[in-house]
Amino acid sequence: MSSTVLEVDIDPRFLADWSGLQGGRPREVLRPVSTAEVSAILRRCHAEGQRVTIQGGMTGVAGGAVPDAGDVVINLERMNRIESLDDIEGLMQVQAGATLQSVQEAAAAAGWQFAVDLGARGSCQVGGNAATNAGGIRVLRYGTMRDQVLGVEAVLADGTVVESLGRLIKNSTGLEARQLFVGTEGTLGVITRLTLRLHPPMGEPQAAWVSASRFEHLPALLRRLRQRLGASLCAFEFMSGDFVALASQLSGTTPPLADAPWHVLVEVAGEAHASPSHLAEALQAGLADAVEAGEIDDAALAASLAQREAFWRLREAIPEVLTHLKPAGAYDVGLPWRETGPYVQQVDAALRAALPEARHLFLGHLGDNNLHLICGPLDDATQHAVCDRIVYEGLRGRSGTVSAEHGVGRLKKEVLAITRGGSELALARRIKAALDPTGILNVGRVMD
Amino acid sequence: MSSTVLEVDIDPRFLADWSGLQGGRPREVLRPVSTAEVSAILRRCHAEGQRVTIQGGMTGVAGGAVPDAGDVVINLERMNRIESLDDIEGLMQVQAGATLQSVQEAAAAAGWQFAVDLGARGSCQVGGNAATNAGGIRVLRYGTMRDQVLGVEAVLADGTVVESLGRLIKNSTGLEARQLFVGTEGTLGVITRLTLRLHPPMGEPQAAWVSASRFEHLPALLRRLRQRLGASLCAFEFMSGDFVALASQLSGTTPPLADAPWHVLVEVAGEAHASPSHLAEALQAGLADAVEAGEIDDAALAASLAQREAFWRLREAIPEVLTHLKPAGAYDVGLPWRETGPYVQQVDAALRAALPEARHLFLGHLGDNNLHLICGPLDDATQHAVCDRIVYEGLRGRSGTVSAEHGVGRLKKEVLAITRGGSELALARRIKAALDPTGILNVGRVMD
Ligand SMILES: Cc1cc2nc3c(=O)[nH]c(=O)nc-3n(C[C@H](O)[C@H](O)[C@H](O)COP(=O)(O)OP(=O)(O)OC[C@H]3O[C@@H](n4cnc5c(N)ncnc54)[C@H](O)[C@@H]3O)c2cc1C
Ligand SMILES: Cc1cc2nc3c(=O)[nH]c(=O)nc-3n(C[C@H](O)[C@H](O)[C@H](O)COP(=O)(O)OP(=O)(O)OC[C@H]3O[C@@H](n4cnc5c(N)ncnc54)[C@H](O)[C@@H]3O)c2cc1C
Repeated sequence: MSSTVLEVDIDPRFLADWSGLQGGRPREVLRPVSTAEVSAILRRCHAEGQRVTIQGGMTGVAGGAVPDAGDVVINLERMNRIESLDDIEGLMQVQAGATLQSVQEAAAAAGWQFAVDLGARGSCQVGGNAATNAGGIRVLRYGTMRDQVLGVEAVLADGTVVESLGRLIKNSTGLEARQLFVGTEGTLGVITRLTLRLHPPMGEPQAAWVSASRFEHLPALLRRLRQRLGASLCAFEFMSGDFVALASQLSGTTPPLADAPWHVLVEVAGEAHASPSHLAEALQAGLADAVEAGEIDDAALAASLAQREAFWRLREAIPEVLTHLKPAGAYDVGLPWRETGPYVQQVDAALRAALPEARHLFLGHLGDNNLHLICGPLDDATQHAVCDRIVYEGLRGRSGTVSAEHGVGRLKKEVLAITRGGSELALARRIKAALDPTGILNVGRVMD
Repeated sequence: MSSTVLEVDIDPRFLADWSGLQGGRPREVLRPVSTAEVSAILRRCHAEGQRVTIQGGMTGVAGGAVPDAGDVVINLERMNRIESLDDIEGLMQVQAGATLQSVQEAAAAAGWQFAVDLGARGSCQVGGNAATNAGGIRVLRYGTMRDQVLGVEAVLADGTVVESLGRLIKNSTGLEARQLFVGTEGTLGVITRLTLRLHPPMGEPQAAWVSASRFEHLPALLRRLRQRLGASLCAFEFMSGDFVALASQLSGTTPPLADAPWHVLVEVAGEAHASPSHLAEALQAGLADAVEAGEIDDAALAASLAQREAFWRLREAIPEVLTHLKPAGAYDVGLPWRETGPYVQQVDAALRAALPEARHLFLGHLGDNNLHLICGPLDDATQHAVCDRIVYEGLRGRSGTVSAEHGVGRLKKEVLAITRGGSELALARRIKAALDPTGILNVGRVMD
């Protein structure tokens, strides 16, 4: 380990992610450039019982990458090489610290698409995306990060390097190492390299804006569109009327349809090399059927690129909404389609009663079982706690999740058992004990 | 445990799968009807150090479900209930012993499709499909069994029931239990229930038959078609000229194009509710470009359903071919697209030299990285061993797998280390030791 590489450095950017959580002062921040260096660091930490915090791009919103006082931080930012790209088969091998955007750009330059995309693309790393099983805006069509990871190299707590950089679509020879490291937020090992799957570039999407008077019509609409459009359906983003009204006001964008209790932004797209006209027709026909069936009130197809952008401008006004309602609680729960409506109704009523001064807005990717809720302003810790309780306790007895998107980290540890059963948690503990027996990796994250 | 349910019964059907392997006489064959019964059996076996063999539909071809003498057999055939179907979201919850066909039929009756399909559908069980991560003929479009399993209930060696019947597309709350049990061939637990994802029914496929003079043109053709057709491309089945000639002779079916070194059966399909004509046009345009680029010699679109069936009749003449070349070796290796051509060339030459009397035929799903090889007749064990050695040793140093489809079971254990690295195998052993510390489940399968 050369000291030029493994420097000691406590720049404030190593202390906080986007969760707003305050961590402690780490003993040192190490920025290895190779898997061998990661292995050497972990071997030493393991021998010393030294706790380790793993850091990707620090864009997480659950506090997972925030160090505790005295931790050794392993920050992946220097391991950002794109090692190879197979432009025939559509695959890349990269170091885990490569930013999502650099991976997307390298894929595009070779005539392919890396299909996970999210707002933090410029800073977040594919290793962090894998560790949190990131979703983003194209899950309906391409799945989550798990669906893009064909192989992984990871270093276990004791420094053991697991090289499993498989690149095959089909392999029936036992345990796939990648399945242990994707989505476990760095509790089982440091992801150092990934084999990623690419997709053909997507053609220009066709967008429509839909209004509906009752939430329970949205699952029927989504079923109808999935049946007709299959994999061409690439977005089904619902928003409550309140959200759209505020987003419109804050972004200066007029919604294409009159005020309604619910709005949906729908998109379809084919491959870049295919003609999109039949898709627009199929979408139009599906929506016409839905109007006739009484599922939706009205629908408007985006007539131009500018109109499509205005639709998304409304959907993506979340940062402005969060700032306007500051300090706000933001949630990313998940539910079956059928349970989403009743849950929204229940939480809506409870929040209205308990926090009459706050506004609460709903939106989400229904097809991914994802419901976002923004509630604010919340004046103090007590109000935050009240809001948390209503949102998370509302999930009890439902087949949902406390986090469909951002991960558990430090923030959702206490509520995890509301939606994960005891036997699932016990299994996770058994695996943790097998791979990190002395408990040094990302301590206090996900589970205690 | 009532004895009417857990009867002692050594019917020969419990002794052999499709591998031809001879097992031993089990101590008893138990056919539980509930998860609680499976748990009680395993608790007892664990306490007694009693070895257990798990059986699904016994259609496996790697010997995984064949018992050793003295084993307790847990056969899942009575746990075949379809417990629920969500016809809005497109999901099913089933017991693991439900046959693939019963699941497919229940899905279809509700206006959905269960997307894994294979020849053994009438006998194989979804639990067995999950345990072997079965593929089948639609992997290019829908993925393997892993992609269909949203949740799992499994019983560990000590009787612990892990209930993780999640049903969400997106869930970011740590380890997904299903990822441990899919593809591990019953070495980590007995799968008792599954949540399965359904897809919209597929429309009538459009088929084409393509001939090419050189294998290395096939990856270029597949890239071209993927880029143009994306998820609509649902089959890319290549066959060597020798295979097609023999299949034609044995099935009495004339190939649509003249003899050539390589043939490919290509299919595209959209959703059932969409018009297929634009797909046929897109396929035709893609193939015309490929002819112009010199990638392929000729192409013929199936003009009728009967012609499409004749194309598949040739591709599916494998049983006749196997019988004709009996006793034959049959392999299901996997390789990156670029490495498949050189591997075929190398194995072809080596087999020609070492086994001049045998014929050897190549075919496979290129998009899934899957290459099937049939070699026969092989007169004795020595010839079988020679063939095995050429096929498996040929994978050394390549990024392939000894089994892309049928699993390791008892048959490929010895060659597993050719394509799985030492660190991957060590990780698998660590997980096995954590979940089955006394080693009673499916002993001698996958790894020792
Ligand atoms: C503007 C914005 C938009 C976002 N949009 C989305 C969205 O649409 N969908 C979504 O899912 N998330 C979203 N997020 C959350 C976040 O960007 C993602 O979770 C991202 O995947 C985190 O990547 P990172 O590299 O920044 O990880 P970090 O924040 O650095 O770390 C996150 C967790 O992963 C662990 N980790 C990081 N790298 C590794 C590694 N190499 N090996 C092992 N463990 C590691 C850390 O220890 C920590 O527990 C958004 C965040 C922001 C700020
Ligand atoms: C005609 C034919 C065509 C085939 N085509 C294909 C194909 O296209 N693609 C493909 O991938 N395979 C194919 N196969 C192989 C085989 O059908 C599949 O592997 C199938 O998935 C096995 O299911 P099964 O229920 O018969 O399992 P079994 O043969 O009973 O068992 C297979 C393995 O899984 C374990 N197992 C079974 N059930 C469970 C459970 N509930 N919990 C834990 N472990 C369990 C067993 O112990 C064993 O190790 C084919 C086989 C035949 C005979």
